[in-house]
Amino acid sequence: MAVMRASRSLSRVALLAARTPALAGARSLSAKPVRLSEEEITSLTPAGWTTVEGREAIERKFQFADFSEAWAFMSRSALAAEEMCHHPEWFNVYNTVHVTLATHDCSGLSKNDMELAARMNKFAGSA
Amino acid sequence: MAVMRASRSLSRVALLAARTPALAGARSLSAKPVRLSEEEITSLTPAGWTTVEGREAIERKFQFADFSEAWAFMSRSALAAEEMCHHPEWFNVYNTVHVTLATHDCSGLSKNDMELAARMNKFAGSA
Amino acid sequence: MAVMRASRSLSRVALLAARTPALAGARSLSAKPVRLSEEEITSLTPAGWTTVEGREAIERKFQFADFSEAWAFMSRSALAAEEMCHHPEWFNVYNTVHVTLATHDCSGLSKNDMELAARMNKFAGSA
Amino acid sequence: MAVMRASRSLSRVALLAARTPALAGARSLSAKPVRLSEEEITSLTPAGWTTVEGREAIERKFQFADFSEAWAFMSRSALAAEEMCHHPEWFNVYNTVHVTLATHDCSGLSKNDMELAARMNKFAGSA
Repeated sequence: MAVMRASRSLSRVALLAARTPALAGARSLSAKPVRLSEEEITSLTPAGWTTVEGREAIERKFQFADFSEAWAFMSRSALAAEEMCHHPEWFNVYNTVHVTLATHDCSGLSKNDMELAARMNKFAGSA
Repeated sequence: MAVMRASRSLSRVALLAARTPALAGARSLSAKPVRLSEEEITSLTPAGWTTVEGREAIERKFQFADFSEAWAFMSRSALAAEEMCHHPEWFNVYNTVHVTLATHDCSGLSKNDMELAARMNKFAGSA
Repeated sequence: MAVMRASRSLSRVALLAARTPALAGARSLSAKPVRLSEEEITSLTPAGWTTVEGREAIERKFQFADFSEAWAFMSRSALAAEEMCHHPEWFNVYNTVHVTLATHDCSGLSKNDMELAARMNKFAGSA
Repeated sequence: MAVMRASRSLSRVALLAARTPALAGARSLSAKPVRLSEEEITSLTPAGWTTVEGREAIERKFQFADFSEAWAFMSRSALAAEEMCHHPEWFNVYNTVHVTLATHDCSGLSKNDMELAARMNKFAGSA
């Protein structure tokens, strides 16, 4: 978790560096998410998530009691996504939410995906 | 709980009766929420809720870990409120949600308030 | 629109009839959503929606300025869905929401789908 | 608007500086929101917002067509609040949302309040 926290701060710094001239020095921290290696993907993927066949992405199907519970989960996840500026691909019907995570900017998986996946697990009560 | 379920169905029937000519017979089921007596209020008020001073209403202050948790609670409650066509008065700041419930149509408390209060307790994990 | 309103009231009555012994007389109003004929589908499908290939369902892809706008649309639609007890299949990524509507209980399309579709159009500002 | 954008980036940098040892140099950018002067409050307060009597805060009462519209507004505002890590005090009943904004960390108003107020105006379609 410490790793992910650090990653999150770093990705924000990178974001800021790109926007804020005064932070020019921080720019070197990396301007975009770093693509994870296969080993990193294996070790960092949170419980319950699996890699998608034929695509560098992870996915998980969450099941809830009803739409109300599923929607509470989605509402918290939406806040987290907007805050991280990292949005899921998700499909919902009634009490199921099928989430796929990947990072466009690195054409693969980054630590942002692992962090959002971990937070969604927590929101779903299965962290 | 059985009592409240029944009440809910009845209030919907009343709503429908008012809107649906074909249901004229159902109109007699009562066109608006029935105001609870003091005894009923005492026996039906869910755990954690108290009566408001100087007003026929009940209130409860919910406390959560953070805004995300509070928002999940509010999101589920919003669904329930819209479904019941019975909306709360609520105040939120960060991790607290202060809810007040009353029924305009009967100028007091009805079983709708008791049901919404019970559902909110459940959503907050304190049912 | 009048037709859909009526339909909605009727489906609720059916729901109530199934739950409320006192409403036994209303039961005959029909216990489940009625499957629309091809002609009805053609005439009732709201603007922007098309039939899904190989399945009796309608779909529409909504595009918004950003996730925030898409989420506002989904939040209103969630309230409507819960209120109607009729939930969409929907896929979201960032600013797009792809919605598919069908009615399990009649293995096809019912007026509920047409009503939810019309309300979603309104929520998206394209009614 | 340019001023507010800058302010927002700065407050995030400050937040990061406090969390990220590697960013020690950024710490001097200011660790907490700066309290606005009376002149700044007057010139920066967005349309429709007024100062609260007896408290350094701004408020606005938003009115919508119904709960659904009010909730869409709140849902977008919640995303913005979480993203800014700056949360409103707000009261909702049915179609009205009464918002009060202030900044705890500076015991008064900061540019964060002005930015959130401006974004809420935009969400309410009155920017």
